[in-house]
Amino acid sequence: MSIDPAFRKRLIQASGADNVLTEPSDCWPYGYDNSRRQALPEAVVMATDHAQIQRLVELCHQEKIPLIARGRGTGTTGATVPVHGGIVLSMERMTRLIKMDPANRVMVVEPGITNQQVQDAAKEHGFFWSPDPTSAAFCTVGGNLAYNSAGPRTVKYGATRDNVLGLRAVTGEGREIRTGVYTTKGVVGYDLTRLLIGSEGTLAVITEATLKLTPLPEAKLTLQAVYRDIGSAAAAVSAIMAQPVIPCALEFIDGQAIEMIRNYSQAELPEGAGAMLMIEVDGLEAGLEQAAERVAAAARTAGVIDVTLAQSEAEVQRLWQTRKALSPALRNIAPKKINEDVVVPVSEMPALIGGLEQLAQKYAITIVNFGHAGNGNIHVNLLIDPDDPQQMENADHCLDEVFTLVLRLNGSISGEHGVGLEKRDFVAREIDAATLELMRRIKAQFDPHNILNPGKTLPPAPG
Amino acid sequence: MSIDPAFRKRLIQASGADNVLTEPSDCWPYGYDNSRRQALPEAVVMATDHAQIQRLVELCHQEKIPLIARGRGTGTTGATVPVHGGIVLSMERMTRLIKMDPANRVMVVEPGITNQQVQDAAKEHGFFWSPDPTSAAFCTVGGNLAYNSAGPRTVKYGATRDNVLGLRAVTGEGREIRTGVYTTKGVVGYDLTRLLIGSEGTLAVITEATLKLTPLPEAKLTLQAVYRDIGSAAAAVSAIMAQPVIPCALEFIDGQAIEMIRNYSQAELPEGAGAMLMIEVDGLEAGLEQAAERVAAAARTAGVIDVTLAQSEAEVQRLWQTRKALSPALRNIAPKKINEDVVVPVSEMPALIGGLEQLAQKYAITIVNFGHAGNGNIHVNLLIDPDDPQQMENADHCLDEVFTLVLRLNGSISGEHGVGLEKRDFVAREIDAATLELMRRIKAQFDPHNILNPGKTLPPAPG
Repeated sequence: MSIDPAFRKRLIQASGADNVLTEPSDCWPYGYDNSRRQALPEAVVMATDHAQIQRLVELCHQEKIPLIARGRGTGTTGATVPVHGGIVLSMERMTRLIKMDPANRVMVVEPGITNQQVQDAAKEHGFFWSPDPTSAAFCTVGGNLAYNSAGPRTVKYGATRDNVLGLRAVTGEGREIRTGVYTTKGVVGYDLTRLLIGSEGTLAVITEATLKLTPLPEAKLTLQAVYRDIGSAAAAVSAIMAQPVIPCALEFIDGQAIEMIRNYSQAELPEGAGAMLMIEVDGLEAGLEQAAERVAAAARTAGVIDVTLAQSEAEVQRLWQTRKALSPALRNIAPKKINEDVVVPVSEMPALIGGLEQLAQKYAITIVNFGHAGNGNIHVNLLIDPDDPQQMENADHCLDEVFTLVLRLNGSISGEHGVGLEKRDFVAREIDAATLELMRRIKAQFDPHNILNPGKTLPPAPG
Repeated sequence: MSIDPAFRKRLIQASGADNVLTEPSDCWPYGYDNSRRQALPEAVVMATDHAQIQRLVELCHQEKIPLIARGRGTGTTGATVPVHGGIVLSMERMTRLIKMDPANRVMVVEPGITNQQVQDAAKEHGFFWSPDPTSAAFCTVGGNLAYNSAGPRTVKYGATRDNVLGLRAVTGEGREIRTGVYTTKGVVGYDLTRLLIGSEGTLAVITEATLKLTPLPEAKLTLQAVYRDIGSAAAAVSAIMAQPVIPCALEFIDGQAIEMIRNYSQAELPEGAGAMLMIEVDGLEAGLEQAAERVAAAARTAGVIDVTLAQSEAEVQRLWQTRKALSPALRNIAPKKINEDVVVPVSEMPALIGGLEQLAQKYAITIVNFGHAGNGNIHVNLLIDPDDPQQMENADHCLDEVFTLVLRLNGSISGEHGVGLEKRDFVAREIDAATLELMRRIKAQFDPHNILNPGKTLPPAPG
């Protein structure tokens, strides 16, 4: 698809000549994300400020041209891949920290700023912003807003949706809206802030976000707990989450993962380990050891093999080494593994892992599970060779059954990666028809010509 | 207005004869709330279960009859007063605790259950539900959902919107929707849960709520900090909120309130007190004293007169006595005071209180301020005599200027009481026209015939 010269002229008029790319070779790098999907946009516009974005959206609305906002492409679901062509709006230059307001624990930023830049700026004033995805060094706040990104510390401090006070945005009609408040409380009007967060650029283009900051903890302690089986580990997670010391990380790896680590690294692990939890507790130094002991006590369920509280920074490193050995091991065995992101109630984790073991057998696929146990958010890794068509077909069937299992357990098909294209066609299994129809109608109010990231997030209307 | 006999018959058919009141004398008690407004509904229906509510909404949708869901009438904004007639749907009999799930820290309830009943049931398992409005003993969870209710502990544990995972509801077309998840994470579809929370019954009738519980803290310590002036107190609030020990209550009263307490009670207060903070810190017993000391250190700003850490339960009572003497004193002086509920960024509290002092002089009205300082949420009390028409007119002008001031300070006209009728006509000052129009369009998707609590929350469309 190539761009009409008259439209190109108007695009340049609206966006500035320096900010418009139309050569396919220039546009190509803006057409992929970490899902390994790719499609060529007809043009790429570099966002510079709110007014420029508003002009661009107006133009796209008039001409019914798809517009896909994009951060740094670290998403895993194809949500920014321009499968219907149109214009990719890259936020990479819109990286200003508009306001740092430590007295109110607030930071106002443009969407192109990276998560890490936000953390660095907040740290100077003794704060952090809770969302901590693995891609923090590269991913943008705009992406975090689009996907409602989370990470290990979500279990204590919340995900993106819990840590944003307000937004400035442009709807699909090119109208500016301001949602939310600059305060930590507010009940005037409908909550459009949280409606936009997690909507993957399908409702509006966010041009400014007011982030809620949290004071940095003074100290942190690390524990490792090893279990005979997943059932004991899940019981421990419930017990940990039922006492007043909420950990700032409560991460999990399953027996298959432990086996893999044992084979591919030097990490020490006790014999008979069927599941492991990595736990971190933060707060004031005073009382923190007792807090960690309280968590350790809760972690000592019937099937526990060992609970270790790191006594030194070296021991912290040693304990995390096991968990950190997992990713290289996985990459080694299956460089193109499928990484799913399901969530179930904590008490259903044993049923989930048990079911996954059965599916692994049925489809002859190795499945390795790890994730954020405190939220029941498990990354299900199917170790497949994408060049083997039979295995790929098996993987498709297997994933289908994984989602069925997750929904039967009262879970959700995505905890933090989002829907995009990858899971779009499974959404109707989780959300009933009436609720989906309402979501589509809401989308049509924000974006009547369906130009904003069309074809993503919601499955097409039936019939 | 009286009800048409044919419609009455259909209403009884849909709702059950035992659940329908149509005698004006029976209906009258369901037409008021704590705003002191009152209007007579044409009928009252006692909600019994989801299916019955769905039948009723279908009927009202067909016949375009207003339907106003109501808890126990403790709201202060007239949000449940049936000013357009129609049917009041009372939730008072729909009080079931559907599911208690301690392993997942979840409780599923019907909307008529009181906040206190939820707290009691949660406590048996070592949990609480964060929203703690003053009316907790009487107010319903449905009301808490409608207003996004909060309270003192919101500063640490969040308001209603932060503590609900999912909802079951009936839209204005009589369609069942299910929003959210049963897990503490989830990013599939748009966030309709938080859209419904705070929408004051204008989008859907909530029939079931999945509440997120929090473990009860082990211990609590109480501090009182007294300041020469509001500026010093506000600086202390910023300092307290910038260090890692977030208090579970950070309450404020101003100099006028202190003066009043001094005159109307035995509570001890140091001379020259221009503002007071009541602070509570909770957590494990181990380390809690150090945590309280950390907060006390932050509270010791330049204008501090005294910071007292209660050393015994008796001293806790003595310290709170001052704060608790305020409400009777206020009732004594001005039984029909106007109680507003504004919120400003914490750093703007001195500007707010300063501005309020000027307005008090200008309009010759005593204004007393107290509230949830950690969130900048201040209850502005205008001590007026409602039988004095001149004073009432002054109060109207004064309130108008209060809202202007609050918005100039980047605040919001309601922190936790909501909009209802009382503040509806001020909403357009806070929310711009494009955003309001979008909210109206969203309302029309949920409720195309505008039967659900018509005339509340959003100001009428212009023109």
